Amino acid sequence: MSKNIFIILSVLSFTIACTEQQTEKDQESKGKDKPLNFVVIFADDLGYGDLSSYGHPTIHTKNLDQMAVEGQKWTNFYVGSSVCTPSRAALLTGRLPIRNGMTSRVNRVLFPDSHNGLPQNEVTMAEQLKKVGYRTACIGKWHLGHKEEYLPTNQGFDYYFGIPYSNDMDNIIPFRSAHGYIDFWKSEERKDINTFNVPLMRNTEIVERPADQNTLTKRYNEEAVQFIRQNKEKPFFLYLAHNLPHVPLFASKDFLGTSNRGIYGDVVEEIDHGVGQILAELKKNGLDENTIVVFTSDNGPWLIMNEEGGSAGLLREGKGSTWEGGMREPCIFWGPGRIQPGLVTQIGTTMDLFTTFSKLANVPLPDDRKIDGTDLGPTLFEKMPSIRKEVFYYRGDELYAVRLGAFKAHFITEGAYGPPAREEHNPPLLYNLEVDPSEKFNVADSNLDIIEQIQALVKKHNSDLVKGKDQLKDRG
Amino acid sequence: MSKNIFIILSVLSFTIACTEQQTEKDQESKGKDKPLNFVVIFADDLGYGDLSSYGHPTIHTKNLDQMAVEGQKWTNFYVGSSVCTPSRAALLTGRLPIRNGMTSRVNRVLFPDSHNGLPQNEVTMAEQLKKVGYRTACIGKWHLGHKEEYLPTNQGFDYYFGIPYSNDMDNIIPFRSAHGYIDFWKSEERKDINTFNVPLMRNTEIVERPADQNTLTKRYNEEAVQFIRQNKEKPFFLYLAHNLPHVPLFASKDFLGTSNRGIYGDVVEEIDHGVGQILAELKKNGLDENTIVVFTSDNGPWLIMNEEGGSAGLLREGKGSTWEGGMREPCIFWGPGRIQPGLVTQIGTTMDLFTTFSKLANVPLPDDRKIDGTDLGPTLFEKMPSIRKEVFYYRGDELYAVRLGAFKAHFITEGAYGPPAREEHNPPLLYNLEVDPSEKFNVADSNLDIIEQIQALVKKHNSDLVKGKDQLKDRG
Repeated sequence: MSKNIFIILSVLSFTIACTEQQTEKDQESKGKDKPLNFVVIFADDLGYGDLSSYGHPTIHTKNLDQMAVEGQKWTNFYVGSSVCTPSRAALLTGRLPIRNGMTSRVNRVLFPDSHNGLPQNEVTMAEQLKKVGYRTACIGKWHLGHKEEYLPTNQGFDYYFGIPYSNDMDNIIPFRSAHGYIDFWKSEERKDINTFNVPLMRNTEIVERPADQNTLTKRYNEEAVQFIRQNKEKPFFLYLAHNLPHVPLFASKDFLGTSNRGIYGDVVEEIDHGVGQILAELKKNGLDENTIVVFTSDNGPWLIMNEEGGSAGLLREGKGSTWEGGMREPCIFWGPGRIQPGLVTQIGTTMDLFTTFSKLANVPLPDDRKIDGTDLGPTLFEKMPSIRKEVFYYRGDELYAVRLGAFKAHFITEGAYGPPAREEHNPPLLYNLEVDPSEKFNVADSNLDIIEQIQALVKKHNSDLVKGKDQLKDRG
Repeated sequence: MSKNIFIILSVLSFTIACTEQQTEKDQESKGKDKPLNFVVIFADDLGYGDLSSYGHPTIHTKNLDQMAVEGQKWTNFYVGSSVCTPSRAALLTGRLPIRNGMTSRVNRVLFPDSHNGLPQNEVTMAEQLKKVGYRTACIGKWHLGHKEEYLPTNQGFDYYFGIPYSNDMDNIIPFRSAHGYIDFWKSEERKDINTFNVPLMRNTEIVERPADQNTLTKRYNEEAVQFIRQNKEKPFFLYLAHNLPHVPLFASKDFLGTSNRGIYGDVVEEIDHGVGQILAELKKNGLDENTIVVFTSDNGPWLIMNEEGGSAGLLREGKGSTWEGGMREPCIFWGPGRIQPGLVTQIGTTMDLFTTFSKLANVPLPDDRKIDGTDLGPTLFEKMPSIRKEVFYYRGDELYAVRLGAFKAHFITEGAYGPPAREEHNPPLLYNLEVDPSEKFNVADSNLDIIEQIQALVKKHNSDLVKGKDQLKDRG
């Protein structure tokens, strides 16, 4: 290389470096002014212990693990209910399901013969964000009413692609089995997509029935990526609600048989793959510094499904229960340059997303009703302690347990699906969840003051509680 | 800036950049030629679920988590026994304790009135590495014989600083309690260092008695850092065997009361802090690319200690048991530029360190005895499948269970400390640990071929097994 060329190249490289720096700065400040996009990735029946970053030894969720390294990994994050329909209602409205009638003592969730759904007068996160011009999509499982008036496109979503209720529904075979529902899940019929007459919908139309469940996760992931690509110029809210790893378990051919954990692992790793695709698409379109992505699940693992159910890790019990395994979930927040990376042991809930996103998008909260969410912003962006100190654990329309700070009081306990029988506790059972996350050591006797504080909190909670009309009871 | 100066600066920056690159390359190749240092950090009674990177919600092990991100996080890593003395013998000799008499049906570990220790004809990892000029130190708990002939300085270590047996020993109070040993652990006496008459030794001298247990972890960490600093010019092997979180739990004032998890968390976070200090010291001295650091623990959590025992996460049972919680441990390998970062679901054991380190240091294995270790190199450096496919789970001198690939057969089961009573199984119980890490679903009936393979493996194992003379039985 001649000396002259060397000097020219050096100047050139220096100039390019400076320009790149300036461009980066421009982009950064530009990015910070633009409205934020929100992506909520919601799994179904995934347990606290089902990601490698949350301790699973053989499910390898490499994209979620990387997301946790780059973002915040929450370890005390809760859903609004231990079963599907009420949990989704809580997420989308920022309200306890007891307030909007989406939890019932008669039916725990909506069924294909249910009459109702999420009431129209509820404000969903999608409706909230549409007030300020967001494009909104629901991709995946809905389960908040399958009649047209209750479908996503009538609840604030511009676009819907998915199944209207659980992937095991619209199917009389399990209930007709000689040994009942549980025995059905050991039969070969569970592996046939034709056993489940679940419809796949686009907006309000059924486009496939039965849905080809083998490729649902793959198609949801593709639809999610496409929605991001199509809306890169506008602010958007994407609600990607996978219907797996809820049984029946299906994976596309690229994932089937690839995980050490068996079909359950295949399924979780395909969801994880989609997370990688989504984050890559955001980066590709320069949206990563301008988007908050949250990953969590609707409730704990369905333990009665044995090997085809997940794991709550060190937490007690699973789906259907008000023990921690039923309602505490893995939760990862991602937003490079905004979310402060690290482990967060503060308390948060899915209902807080409604409040947090509303604030970030500058949409006032509805002022004619109680909103249960709190703003997670201080924790997400400044690593401050969470505003939230309490969690209410409802089962049906009854308050079974309450967490206040480190302590959780169980007023009622009951097996998730079967024994042990319902039992009321007075004084309540009391666990220090920070010291004893597995709820093994009842410390009620030495903490009567804490019990009094929790009882006062319950009294306050009940004093202004307006129970919504039961939307789940009418069927057939 | 004038144009000339600008050009000069550009050339200069370009030249500096090139020189830096060259220097890095030099250092790299230089580093790769130097002998490797080895650091083994060994916790005591730490459970599979007790690090945040292995799923604990309130113990924040930020240094170990970072080490796991930079290194390899193993999820199927085992110790040689579910209790202290035999587990340490296995680590240091690369041999199953049954071969060297360090496991017994009479006493599960060595006690302060035990007569014997690790036989002199055993070759320790320290003796092995000394053959090629390594400097060696044992800092922390020994528990392989407290009489002078058995102490670390007579087993290949140039230097020893620590306690010769468990930190709850040399103490008659627990055994004199009206309600026995377990009840003692609820008394206030457990919080007084004077309750435990454990000696602190430097080489073969007692330097403090009772040891001030409040500051032991802190002092071990400091000694470890000092040893690295003093030996930065020579190859070294550092065996840092913390005596915590084995009860009684003590933390120095910087950590006491700081963890959400209570005293158990304080203790683990102080050990984690030391890990950070050690990695920082290696980096500061340019030894990071030239050192392999391994973190693991001797056995699972001591569950009968309630809140002061740890958690095995999703694994079944804990210390003292041949269920997974007793013998599977968190294990992190670190060696920037050498160890390929990522999650490893392959099988490894502490005994493999003997073989792996011997190979890396070019020391031939002893050829007059059976060595149970395998070389982990292909997995550590090339992410290849592990050579090891099997694990033997001994309790005392009996083989209770065997893992082969994904499957584990239990021939005998027994409560860790108390019920359920010992029970023999023929056919054995069989679990698929990859699909069912919690050992909940016995799949023996549908896998008779696997049971046959495991029985053949046991037959082969027994065919050339020479049991060592019981070193633990003589006491008093």
